[in-house]
Amino acid sequence: MEAIDSLVKLLSRLPGIGGKSASRIAYHLIASDEGYNSRLAESIASIKSRIHFCPVCGAYSEGGECEYCSNPNRERNLLCIVEQPQDVITIASSGIYNGLFHVLGGAINPMDGVGPDQLSFASLKKRVAGGSFTEIIIATNPTEEGDTTALYIRQLLKDCDVSITRLAAGLPIGGDLEYADRLTLARSIRGRISFR
Amino acid sequence: MEAIDSLVKLLSRLPGIGGKSASRIAYHLIASDEGYNSRLAESIASIKSRIHFCPVCGAYSEGGECEYCSNPNRERNLLCIVEQPQDVITIASSGIYNGLFHVLGGAINPMDGVGPDQLSFASLKKRVAGGSFTEIIIATNPTEEGDTTALYIRQLLKDCDVSITRLAAGLPIGGDLEYADRLTLARSIRGRISFR
Repeated sequence: MEAIDSLVKLLSRLPGIGGKSASRIAYHLIASDEGYNSRLAESIASIKSRIHFCPVCGAYSEGGECEYCSNPNRERNLLCIVEQPQDVITIASSGIYNGLFHVLGGAINPMDGVGPDQLSFASLKKRVAGGSFTEIIIATNPTEEGDTTALYIRQLLKDCDVSITRLAAGLPIGGDLEYADRLTLARSIRGRISFR
Repeated sequence: MEAIDSLVKLLSRLPGIGGKSASRIAYHLIASDEGYNSRLAESIASIKSRIHFCPVCGAYSEGGECEYCSNPNRERNLLCIVEQPQDVITIASSGIYNGLFHVLGGAINPMDGVGPDQLSFASLKKRVAGGSFTEIIIATNPTEEGDTTALYIRQLLKDCDVSITRLAAGLPIGGDLEYADRLTLARSIRGRISFR
């Protein structure tokens, strides 16, 4: 049936949604409340026009400076550097970090043609040189690209008078050694910390 | 951010989509092509008005009789009884069955207040009494409700001159005894078949 098939096809292009889940969602939508369907459709149709990027840090914003840059209660001497706008939300909603952010827009990845010029290093340099930060926390992903990017940032900011830290990588809390992958295990051994 | 939060909330009401997947999908939509978003939104908004139910068998239809009832190439002496319209698609797309269907609209479930009166047994009785079927295949789910419903159908059609069969239940092909649940294992032992 064309109507169902085309909906399933569109749904299965979403991340984490395979053919089976897409069908299940389509049947759910056929059976669900008309009002819900139109609210969902309207929300999907308008999301791109409602979300902008903060001109200062690059985080998502509903217009103008983002809720972090414009919030006087955040610690303005801390800067956390992340790859993507959604990483800002992840870190902010952890409730552990109360400083500002800087979104790079990705990580250095020569294989995919992403060099330093495509990322927001120029504005990062300018913000840090501005001098109000005492610590820069590099929160790029614990991947080869994230590591390369972290090294690049260290080099970029080597003349700035700030401390530079990086998120700890190692075994996930609640995990089990048996299920740790080799790379995570290697990182947690190399990065082992003093315990007495 | 209100726009993202409300989209995430709506998405997480879909079956199989938790909070994390909903966020992931929302970020994907923010970053994805405007044209795709509006096609998806339009497809979701219109699906209920585009899908109808076949007046004969209760399967999904885009108007009038469904593609199965109206297809002269299907075997008109076989009738497969299922609980839900989507079960028709699942069985039809397996390619193994080429007969007609009858959708009950659910299974007998007194705990949820679903009695025989809410299901399409009257039209089932009339179709079968019409006399063109030689075999009725009961394809209700292998659950307590599906079993109850199958027993009810057997009773309902006891005076009709047709053979009545039910889908085999047991170990899934490619599965492993070790991972079979107790009920499935019990059913596959009780329903064991002669092998010589």
